[in-house]
Amino acid sequence: MRTLNVGLIGGGFMGKAHSLAYAAMPMFFWPAPALPVRSVIAESNEELAAEAARRFGFERSTGDWRQVVEDPDVDVVDIATPNHLHAEIAVAAARAGKHIICEKPLARTAPEAAQMWNAVKDAGTVHMVAFNYRRTPAVALAKKYLEEGAIGRVLNFRGTYLQDWSADPDSPLSWRFQKDIAGSGALGDIGSHVVDLARYLVGEIASVNAMTSTFIPTRPLQSGGADSLGTTRGGDGPRGDVDVDDEVMTMLRFADGAVGSIEATRNAWGRNNHITFEIHGTEGSIVFNYERRDELQVCFASDGGDRRGFRTVYTGPNTPYGHGLWPIPALGIGYGETKIIEAYDFFSAIATGGSVSPNFKDGYQATLVDDAVLASAATGAWTDVPQVDG
Amino acid sequence: MRTLNVGLIGGGFMGKAHSLAYAAMPMFFWPAPALPVRSVIAESNEELAAEAARRFGFERSTGDWRQVVEDPDVDVVDIATPNHLHAEIAVAAARAGKHIICEKPLARTAPEAAQMWNAVKDAGTVHMVAFNYRRTPAVALAKKYLEEGAIGRVLNFRGTYLQDWSADPDSPLSWRFQKDIAGSGALGDIGSHVVDLARYLVGEIASVNAMTSTFIPTRPLQSGGADSLGTTRGGDGPRGDVDVDDEVMTMLRFADGAVGSIEATRNAWGRNNHITFEIHGTEGSIVFNYERRDELQVCFASDGGDRRGFRTVYTGPNTPYGHGLWPIPALGIGYGETKIIEAYDFFSAIATGGSVSPNFKDGYQATLVDDAVLASAATGAWTDVPQVDG
Amino acid sequence: MRTLNVGLIGGGFMGKAHSLAYAAMPMFFWPAPALPVRSVIAESNEELAAEAARRFGFERSTGDWRQVVEDPDVDVVDIATPNHLHAEIAVAAARAGKHIICEKPLARTAPEAAQMWNAVKDAGTVHMVAFNYRRTPAVALAKKYLEEGAIGRVLNFRGTYLQDWSADPDSPLSWRFQKDIAGSGALGDIGSHVVDLARYLVGEIASVNAMTSTFIPTRPLQSGGADSLGTTRGGDGPRGDVDVDDEVMTMLRFADGAVGSIEATRNAWGRNNHITFEIHGTEGSIVFNYERRDELQVCFASDGGDRRGFRTVYTGPNTPYGHGLWPIPALGIGYGETKIIEAYDFFSAIATGGSVSPNFKDGYQATLVDDAVLASAATGAWTDVPQVDG
Amino acid sequence: MRTLNVGLIGGGFMGKAHSLAYAAMPMFFWPAPALPVRSVIAESNEELAAEAARRFGFERSTGDWRQVVEDPDVDVVDIATPNHLHAEIAVAAARAGKHIICEKPLARTAPEAAQMWNAVKDAGTVHMVAFNYRRTPAVALAKKYLEEGAIGRVLNFRGTYLQDWSADPDSPLSWRFQKDIAGSGALGDIGSHVVDLARYLVGEIASVNAMTSTFIPTRPLQSGGADSLGTTRGGDGPRGDVDVDDEVMTMLRFADGAVGSIEATRNAWGRNNHITFEIHGTEGSIVFNYERRDELQVCFASDGGDRRGFRTVYTGPNTPYGHGLWPIPALGIGYGETKIIEAYDFFSAIATGGSVSPNFKDGYQATLVDDAVLASAATGAWTDVPQVDG
Repeated sequence: MRTLNVGLIGGGFMGKAHSLAYAAMPMFFWPAPALPVRSVIAESNEELAAEAARRFGFERSTGDWRQVVEDPDVDVVDIATPNHLHAEIAVAAARAGKHIICEKPLARTAPEAAQMWNAVKDAGTVHMVAFNYRRTPAVALAKKYLEEGAIGRVLNFRGTYLQDWSADPDSPLSWRFQKDIAGSGALGDIGSHVVDLARYLVGEIASVNAMTSTFIPTRPLQSGGADSLGTTRGGDGPRGDVDVDDEVMTMLRFADGAVGSIEATRNAWGRNNHITFEIHGTEGSIVFNYERRDELQVCFASDGGDRRGFRTVYTGPNTPYGHGLWPIPALGIGYGETKIIEAYDFFSAIATGGSVSPNFKDGYQATLVDDAVLASAATGAWTDVPQVDG
Repeated sequence: MRTLNVGLIGGGFMGKAHSLAYAAMPMFFWPAPALPVRSVIAESNEELAAEAARRFGFERSTGDWRQVVEDPDVDVVDIATPNHLHAEIAVAAARAGKHIICEKPLARTAPEAAQMWNAVKDAGTVHMVAFNYRRTPAVALAKKYLEEGAIGRVLNFRGTYLQDWSADPDSPLSWRFQKDIAGSGALGDIGSHVVDLARYLVGEIASVNAMTSTFIPTRPLQSGGADSLGTTRGGDGPRGDVDVDDEVMTMLRFADGAVGSIEATRNAWGRNNHITFEIHGTEGSIVFNYERRDELQVCFASDGGDRRGFRTVYTGPNTPYGHGLWPIPALGIGYGETKIIEAYDFFSAIATGGSVSPNFKDGYQATLVDDAVLASAATGAWTDVPQVDG
Repeated sequence: MRTLNVGLIGGGFMGKAHSLAYAAMPMFFWPAPALPVRSVIAESNEELAAEAARRFGFERSTGDWRQVVEDPDVDVVDIATPNHLHAEIAVAAARAGKHIICEKPLARTAPEAAQMWNAVKDAGTVHMVAFNYRRTPAVALAKKYLEEGAIGRVLNFRGTYLQDWSADPDSPLSWRFQKDIAGSGALGDIGSHVVDLARYLVGEIASVNAMTSTFIPTRPLQSGGADSLGTTRGGDGPRGDVDVDDEVMTMLRFADGAVGSIEATRNAWGRNNHITFEIHGTEGSIVFNYERRDELQVCFASDGGDRRGFRTVYTGPNTPYGHGLWPIPALGIGYGETKIIEAYDFFSAIATGGSVSPNFKDGYQATLVDDAVLASAATGAWTDVPQVDG
Repeated sequence: MRTLNVGLIGGGFMGKAHSLAYAAMPMFFWPAPALPVRSVIAESNEELAAEAARRFGFERSTGDWRQVVEDPDVDVVDIATPNHLHAEIAVAAARAGKHIICEKPLARTAPEAAQMWNAVKDAGTVHMVAFNYRRTPAVALAKKYLEEGAIGRVLNFRGTYLQDWSADPDSPLSWRFQKDIAGSGALGDIGSHVVDLARYLVGEIASVNAMTSTFIPTRPLQSGGADSLGTTRGGDGPRGDVDVDDEVMTMLRFADGAVGSIEATRNAWGRNNHITFEIHGTEGSIVFNYERRDELQVCFASDGGDRRGFRTVYTGPNTPYGHGLWPIPALGIGYGETKIIEAYDFFSAIATGGSVSPNFKDGYQATLVDDAVLASAATGAWTDVPQVDG
């Protein structure tokens, strides 16, 4: 069984999630496609990096991400940094011939993403963008239903991503609220996940009509330490401007004739990680809510009149990825398992010399949707989404 | 206790619901504001009318609605006909000095509604448009919360009305699919209820950006008998064109700065009478789903960190209209009770010489929203909604 | 169409519910089996009776229930009084040759119920005990599933009835907490409904093993006026003893080999009218919760592995009684509709000269179960339930 | 930071779960109380053991569990075998001075458990029984509420554990259906978890009254390979007898006056890992369902009349163990996290020289409850539960 050395850049929330995935993937999926070795981890300085290495089980550490990219022993570069660093690292890693997995959104803008896509095309390595929610087993089951035609032709996709961790105006000004680092706000941070789900499940988005809002215009500046997700209040210190959206709402036209809508907001008190979609087809409907992620609801029009209704299917051994997960439905998976499955598919692609989806092309296409959303929000008009070639 | 003679025009689904309301209102709300007398009912011919009178407990019947309007003994005219008759009947009834309750939407178009609004203004009688879902106790409770400021300033309203009784392309071509009778499709039939709820709960809608679809372009012609809601299939006989929308999606800007969206579709397999709204405010959120109409969900931002979450409040004696309903929460109300409460508020306004909401002005304003939605769907542009004076 | 004159005894919560049923039944079920005429209503004095007549739409009123029973114009006697009066009224009504519908529990004890059963047997009239929850369409649908063998042979029935309207120790000492009037507490008042559902859905109960508790031993005495369901607090006045159970828990053995449990409690904060059952069969499961009464959940073992899960079926036109109810599922039924359906079945039996279930024999059998429960709770031992002959 | 060498015995479902816990615990809880080293793993033969070592990341492997127990480098022995081996291994490990974590139920019978409890008392090491569901954050939150008195004094505990992975009579005869290996059936395998939760949340169980059933008396013999949880059918080969219960139902009296019930069944089609409890107190109620394990429902009697209802609290950073879990509620935890938290508490106890709960005394007490349940089921009488001293 082949081993692959991983160099991970970033030791925050995503660093934790990815480290877990590398440690756990062979435990879940056995025989594993390849054995990940947690080889080297980079953080913003040596001290943080050394601590991250101990915590996340890496052999070595560095305060300079370039050492990871340039390390000949590293097979896989994992980019788990804030958004503004994605492009530079990814292009360097591609040039160094590494396989790359990059956190989402792929880049702050479509032009930035285009560079990354071009770089990996040239490199010929395996690349993936970490829209992990595709790996929720219930989402993979929805995909299976759609591919089997179980609900007929899709007419309508309605997606939301609602959160409240920053609904408090006194939660701190994370980099996620700063355009030069994040690119956009709720759109790129959370809306992009739903854009990816829409593309995955229904197909390409042809045009959009959107509206953005920024209801909380300033937030307390963060003082020292690592960026937090804002669940603690910032107190009464100095405040900085938020220059990105905290809500985005969009109507969609898909290339194949379906319609849809996507809404993402950070101001939804009571919603935690409320990723939902409802898909209506000519022969049925599918409903998903990540907050109850073990479940998928499906209604088949063909069920008899007194027996028709949404079926609540619990994912488990009989549903996608079930051979590797827990042996009984509703033992239940958490966020970690989405990352474990993601790693499984990524390493499978490397091991077989294949490719994986969503890859950098998908990531680039998603940024094209995001940019069209922002353009439409600025003009108030329907805006076509360019399609990546090839 | 005053008695008021009711003349009901229309003996279909709505005729049944309104008859129930007149019989039951004093049983629920006692002392009653006034005692409704089921005096005369009109249907499209004498025979249907006579049968309706026996079924619904009316003293007399007629095959000509004009006899109802012109009857000096009739105090209240109740218009429960298809949409295209609303204006003519209402204008005649207003001229005859009757109090009027009219089914929704008030009219097929805003100009038609304007005539009706002008007629009742001139008459000085009590008028009401039967957007009954405002009378769901849980909706009235949401209104109470909002008025108390319990969730702060509203930022976002997201409403849906999803049904499937006509999702089957072989369900018959009811008048509800014909523009000359209905005015519009999903928009006027069901979307208008959500427009009314948005106006009731959040305030006036300033502008809209909308998209409409007609996914089922033809349906089997109905043969004979009363119009049905299409739950039976139409067979393989001749088909007619659907010239109205079966889906409508719209983004909203409210006059006070909130944003929102409304979606209505008739193609949502598995959704029966799925009227939902989710309102996010600066201090909390409210969620409602009519399919579980005894419940209102509310989240207060001020609840402590380990005790915050949506509270599922069952309406009952302690919530609006509770003094008249069943003595324990979750004995539960159905569609009928929304109509009983509606009648209670309508008769209260007559008895006290006051007015009631939603009235014809509200009904007119809702048609202005509907017309702006259709205009926006045609142009793809944001469209301002004119506001009714006074 | 035949008319039948109803004499109703009792103008409280049940008087309201039954009056609604008589007014509305033909509106819902048309052609009606017979037309109920609200002829005469009795209350504890003339004044209350006269007001009840106006409120509930009765032609006449009386302060003496014997006048109802003896009235030759009365065809149907409806007993909606506290429990201690059931037997005397019913026996008198039976002797007078009336059809009788009696609120539940049929009597305070099995011997009392036996008298009533004997009296109606002798009279040969139609008799019914108002275990109305059988008439919830979702419960009738569960019965249909079971009769069709859709979940195979029943192994296990788990039922609960949980309420909180008297969970506050300061809610008043209603007659429902007094053994000489009520017979028993949570057992007879609410548990008896679940006993009836268990008998209806699974079959006769052969033996029980039970435990009762009285966690709130005293309550404030009620001062004046009609009995309330205790949703208002009683203040700091004098208190009286509660001499009945406020919780009952029981294990069951059914005659056909299934097992089960029933629990009823009045101390369940947050539960309003939480009547639930879960039935496991060899080929599937059924789950019901009255608080969401439009829905029935059913799981079929035969559904494919990745499509198996509870189906949430909304009752409506395609399910039992649907021809008479609202035309779309989830317009929704409330408590009133259970009583309307009950009246429909009762009048159908009278009109056709047939019988109806649950009748006095069922009511008697339910009291035999209740008495066995109390006996078991006293001894701690499994106790057999005698079976009514014939 | 101290390292502790773990010797794990058993490489099945539990071996996977525990291995994950050792790898992930420091990633989640940092600084970690100690760093687990996956030192040696034992399986039933050398080959299986070697493969398990590669899969689960252990340094060494052995086909003989005695080598683990006797290994001077091993600090912690983890017993993840079928039940019949627990006692022998645990007693040997205790004599060798190891810290011990043992899967549940602690033993097949109370006398067997007593030996284990005596052995660890003598050894003075840290011991734990892996009733992991206590570590569900929502369960820990329920405990916190109870300790804070948030729902007052507990009156009633109602617990269930319902599954269907073996509801099919053709699922194989796992060791879990054989008395000599498992001790009991649904009772020990799943019911014991609820017994543990009842003891944890409410207190000691004083007496029980129980009923057991075996609805599926034979099952196909397993042929070769590791024991599976029976999700695949066994075909038409030879069958063996099931000599344990597949359903157990019990009424409870707690030492402090509360009452309760516990039911566990393997025949509940549609229920996957349906561990539920509902606790009614004098001032509120708590409801939990593991199938939606991120959520805890709580109702406070003190909430105002129009704002009272179950709050659905999502566990996350603000609830127990939140500092170590994912940074936003509803990113969501799965089965794995319950084991990660379990490891955290176990290693914390070792690191601080303290103890942890549930320990072998708790495990022993749970078997005393189980044995009383079986005795009561045999006699039909209330049976007292002996209490472990000290």
